[in-house]
Amino acid sequence: VIVYGRNPVREALRGMRSERVGEVWATSRAAREDFLARREVHIVGADEIERRCGSPAHQGICADAGSYPYAHGSELLRGEEPLIVALDQVQDPQNLGSIVRTAECAGAAGLVIAERRAAEVTPAVCKASAGAVEHLPVARVRNIADFLGEARRAGFWSYGAAAPAPAGADGNGRPKERAPIPYDQPEYRGAGVVLVLGSEGAGLRPRVAGACDELIALPVRGRVQSLNVGAAAAALLYGILQDRGRRS
Amino acid sequence: VIVYGRNPVREALRGMRSERVGEVWATSRAAREDFLARREVHIVGADEIERRCGSPAHQGICADAGSYPYAHGSELLRGEEPLIVALDQVQDPQNLGSIVRTAECAGAAGLVIAERRAAEVTPAVCKASAGAVEHLPVARVRNIADFLGEARRAGFWSYGAAAPAPAGADGNGRPKERAPIPYDQPEYRGAGVVLVLGSEGAGLRPRVAGACDELIALPVRGRVQSLNVGAAAAALLYGILQDRGRRS
Repeated sequence: VIVYGRNPVREALRGMRSERVGEVWATSRAAREDFLARREVHIVGADEIERRCGSPAHQGICADAGSYPYAHGSELLRGEEPLIVALDQVQDPQNLGSIVRTAECAGAAGLVIAERRAAEVTPAVCKASAGAVEHLPVARVRNIADFLGEARRAGFWSYGAAAPAPAGADGNGRPKERAPIPYDQPEYRGAGVVLVLGSEGAGLRPRVAGACDELIALPVRGRVQSLNVGAAAAALLYGILQDRGRRS
Repeated sequence: VIVYGRNPVREALRGMRSERVGEVWATSRAAREDFLARREVHIVGADEIERRCGSPAHQGICADAGSYPYAHGSELLRGEEPLIVALDQVQDPQNLGSIVRTAECAGAAGLVIAERRAAEVTPAVCKASAGAVEHLPVARVRNIADFLGEARRAGFWSYGAAAPAPAGADGNGRPKERAPIPYDQPEYRGAGVVLVLGSEGAGLRPRVAGACDELIALPVRGRVQSLNVGAAAAALLYGILQDRGRRS
């Protein structure tokens, strides 16, 4: 797999698959980066880099990074009160990359995606994550609801981000089995936490929502009434961190 | 100006420039949308829509929405404890659109951008905002630092999001005039608030940082150490909302 771009290549060289990284190609200008100082680099033209990585967004550098080393879901369930993000059918690579970057910055222990109908860790996702995929363990699981069951047995609490109410709703939405509670109400401390986020359009599927211990919602006040899933992830992750900090 | 995409056209038809909206073009399929029911629509092929709007991301619909009705900076400084977002040189249209969408959802009173060296409200920004630009007043000002001075005279407090520390820092960063305080420390209630966010790469420029009453920072814990500006906006806006809610 050819990763491309300054941050993705730099992080691949110092992240969890650093030993798998093989050849590096860079323009003469990009090859002057400090992180390439002790590395053998093929100096080539921008056109060859684009041909190798298949994207014009390469910033003059690409590298053969081997396949992405997915973690196992159960590995993420260790440690002291870890914070894990699980994505139910997030399909846009930009959103997946953005969420990985935010989760890594927020100190999450890992991220879980489904094997099917979901974006996987492609080079475009590496790029959108600014290389954060090289440091945050990402696990692919067969089924998100089953993973939440396993997390529950390991002592975790799962919080599902409820889909924002449809525009103009307040009553005319679909009937909900459970109303979500405000996201700043739960105590997120004292146990591992899984934050579950749904797809860009449809939110959590019923079976996944049903496997969550609690549904939580961010307040929405405007007319558009729907946050991008990456923005929701940032607001919720930092809300959880803030709660943990305040109570500790 | 031709706006395109389902959300942007729908919101343009019900937002603050609805009276400026002229002709609408849609494919026969897109023309069945409820929000077009009482509207005259030219039924055309996808190729003609792409030709008119210049983007393949049109989802079968575009409309002549007139020019974007920018607000005046001083108009945003009215109201009861408004929350305003000011962007210093954010240049990526996706980031601008994403921040507008989040700000509108979080109940902000408006957004301020600079006239130069900054993304303006193009149709791509309308698309990235999911149409939120039609509801959130956006003002272009000559100079962000001067705007913060005006806001201060109007009783506002300005909080500048400090650029994340460089990777591996803790001492080897540039000397800072003022260290930022944790973002969850200030009381954001009792006055209008301007949240100031800097460019994707460089953060706030010194003169803009100097015009802020306080510099605030989100904690970063991972190795990548830098949040996307859209994610930082979401975490900070919801942090401010949460603080205001808790103390009210």
